[in-house]
Amino acid sequence: MSKTPIDPATLDRLAEVAVKVGLDLQPGQDLILTAPTTALPLVRRIAAAAYRAGAGVVTPILSDAEVTLARYRHGHDETFDTAPSWLYNGMAEAYGKNAARMAIVGDDPMLLAEMDAAKVARAGKANSIAYKPALSKISNFDINWTIVAYPGTEWAQRMFPDLSADDATAKLADAIFAASRVTGTDAVAEWQQHNAALRARTRWLNDQRFDALRYTGPGTDLTIGLADDHEWHGGASEARNGVTCNPNMPTEEVFTTPHAHRVNGTVRATKPLAHQGNLIENIEMTFKDGRAVSATASGGEENLIKLIDTDEGARRLGEVALVPHSSPISASGLLFYNTLFDENASCHIALGQCYSKCFLDGATLSEAEIAEKGGNSSMIHVDWMIGSDEIDIDGIKPDGTLVPVFRKGEWAQ
Amino acid sequence: MSKTPIDPATLDRLAEVAVKVGLDLQPGQDLILTAPTTALPLVRRIAAAAYRAGAGVVTPILSDAEVTLARYRHGHDETFDTAPSWLYNGMAEAYGKNAARMAIVGDDPMLLAEMDAAKVARAGKANSIAYKPALSKISNFDINWTIVAYPGTEWAQRMFPDLSADDATAKLADAIFAASRVTGTDAVAEWQQHNAALRARTRWLNDQRFDALRYTGPGTDLTIGLADDHEWHGGASEARNGVTCNPNMPTEEVFTTPHAHRVNGTVRATKPLAHQGNLIENIEMTFKDGRAVSATASGGEENLIKLIDTDEGARRLGEVALVPHSSPISASGLLFYNTLFDENASCHIALGQCYSKCFLDGATLSEAEIAEKGGNSSMIHVDWMIGSDEIDIDGIKPDGTLVPVFRKGEWAQ
Ligand SMILES: [Zn+2]
Ligand SMILES: [Zn+2]
Ligand SMILES: [Zn+2]
Ligand SMILES: [Zn+2]
Repeated sequence: MSKTPIDPATLDRLAEVAVKVGLDLQPGQDLILTAPTTALPLVRRIAAAAYRAGAGVVTPILSDAEVTLARYRHGHDETFDTAPSWLYNGMAEAYGKNAARMAIVGDDPMLLAEMDAAKVARAGKANSIAYKPALSKISNFDINWTIVAYPGTEWAQRMFPDLSADDATAKLADAIFAASRVTGTDAVAEWQQHNAALRARTRWLNDQRFDALRYTGPGTDLTIGLADDHEWHGGASEARNGVTCNPNMPTEEVFTTPHAHRVNGTVRATKPLAHQGNLIENIEMTFKDGRAVSATASGGEENLIKLIDTDEGARRLGEVALVPHSSPISASGLLFYNTLFDENASCHIALGQCYSKCFLDGATLSEAEIAEKGGNSSMIHVDWMIGSDEIDIDGIKPDGTLVPVFRKGEWAQ
Repeated sequence: MSKTPIDPATLDRLAEVAVKVGLDLQPGQDLILTAPTTALPLVRRIAAAAYRAGAGVVTPILSDAEVTLARYRHGHDETFDTAPSWLYNGMAEAYGKNAARMAIVGDDPMLLAEMDAAKVARAGKANSIAYKPALSKISNFDINWTIVAYPGTEWAQRMFPDLSADDATAKLADAIFAASRVTGTDAVAEWQQHNAALRARTRWLNDQRFDALRYTGPGTDLTIGLADDHEWHGGASEARNGVTCNPNMPTEEVFTTPHAHRVNGTVRATKPLAHQGNLIENIEMTFKDGRAVSATASGGEENLIKLIDTDEGARRLGEVALVPHSSPISASGLLFYNTLFDENASCHIALGQCYSKCFLDGATLSEAEIAEKGGNSSMIHVDWMIGSDEIDIDGIKPDGTLVPVFRKGEWAQ
């Protein structure tokens, strides 16, 4: 009998941690669990863990890669502008009644890469519009929610094309389990510790009230002004229903909002960017007063140019995030083609939309107030990696004082 | 390489027939496809067939037996009176906008047999209440809908406990494919022929305007009065959205409403009744003026008594259905533990609720009008088999004339 590629006991722990730490699911609380069919072994464990924790009704909403592909392969052209709004309206109703939400990712991140891009874009747009009532309750943080990952074989083979299905799956499983901090015997305690460490970082950064961060390293000399009244976030945080959850598992970053008009200098990406099925390699970008005035790449440059031409805000930054080089995902050296992992592998910045919660009292601010404080707005939000073990970062105080933040890719404090 | 237990080409045909004949799915029409995860191979084929037929969006809503069991095994007691009404409200919205509905059955019919019966009953009741807005649009026939079957391995092993998983699945697959009339090369044409044959039967029966049917056979001498203005139905029929569909695949029966107060004599069941995980064997029942005045069984008699004691209507008949002994399901000699099949294996009667559509202009009748015409009402509707190759049935005209309907289990006309 061959060894199963995904260790069942560790998968049990991941389910346990997802319910207890990712969600902190409350007794009597319903749970909507979206997942790909490939993740069924984790879906079943999460359902059991949720019921043991006193869940009301757990409702899995399973998507299937083959069914999704069937639409693009056989669907009639005139139907690509529609979406199942009835399902999303139902979800919005459930969140309105305090159901928690967990999403499992696990499908091939490049699933639609070979489908007709125009149809994918039309269906995506129709879906975004239909999903808005439900998504807004998640992004407003009305309820506790989380995203976790399952080592689907198609995803694994995308990452490790030279390995057998079993070997690739085993390797992705190891990487996900390590990144999700469930390899130890008391994963819940480890997560409590990890959340406390992230909280200490955000507290320190918020106390510093830096005016800007300056990045120096090979090909990089970049000063990122921070937005007025910016606030650093990271790890666990409290939803409006009073439950403290971890919206992403794994999570390594602490992040805040840069000032859309106060970014100057040049930055070199340290990892390729996987964007909509394409790889963009060796990005270099120069900013002047917040605007990217030049952008080059050794591979996929035309996709990069198309991306920053999306709208005016696509040339400006909406997020700055700090992740030490020694973080488990970074240490794995892997490219996951999935933001949940890749953005937690390295210090990163994002072109496009900012997070309103990354302001003091962000929930109460209007869009105009956010813009006035330097918050960027755009239809896109695309993270890319600028961290490495050669990057130093200094915090610049309003009086010009420099405070070491990162040295050689690690926290300096 | 071993032969796969379910022939892929025949499964393709089943998907095709389900979409074209079961639903007659219309271009641009959305489809809600409920199914157990075990039926994924059929789900994928139906999605592809639906998209080829011009479907809008196909949304599978997959249930999972393990997730369902997890609730009964681990769920806290106080949560068994709740249901995911958000999902059913969403479905009702979709049906209100003319989405079609297909259900696939395929799970072990005895799945919940070993779970706490009280919890199963509470959850079932909560679910029925929550599902009502969606179900009423189906039972009112607002939209085209159908139910088809997939040979799930757990179901197969319940039917063939002595066979290996693969052999049991292969045997159930053969039985489902034969019963669903998809073993030939032009299954759509075969279904059109079958529907025409059923239509000829219902037309003849409706023209006869029988006052009653008299059944004679071993242990059986039963006269079933038919309701005033009863109407026979069977096979394809037209939904209120104008689409003609086959709500059940397979379907062999023609059926109508008996008179709740004009049933007299004794009847012996010809097959065991599988009811809520229990088998009730060798039922004998005597009726006087419509009411079951004695009921015995050689096995599970206490369950039979509990059943007919549910409410006043549970002791009276709500359906009478005619199925020739030579129908493919009957010929298989199998007990499927699933009404979709077992009720199409044999002439049957049902204790409990009648169908309002089995009256002339039934859609316009009030509950009081239905009761006045002899239609029964009850919380239950339980079919049981009374047909065999030894049963004769005569139609009795209002003037007492006898017309042979069945001889030795087959149509006499
Ligand atoms: Zn980030
Ligand atoms: Zn980001
Ligand atoms: Zn029937
Ligand atoms: Zn029935």
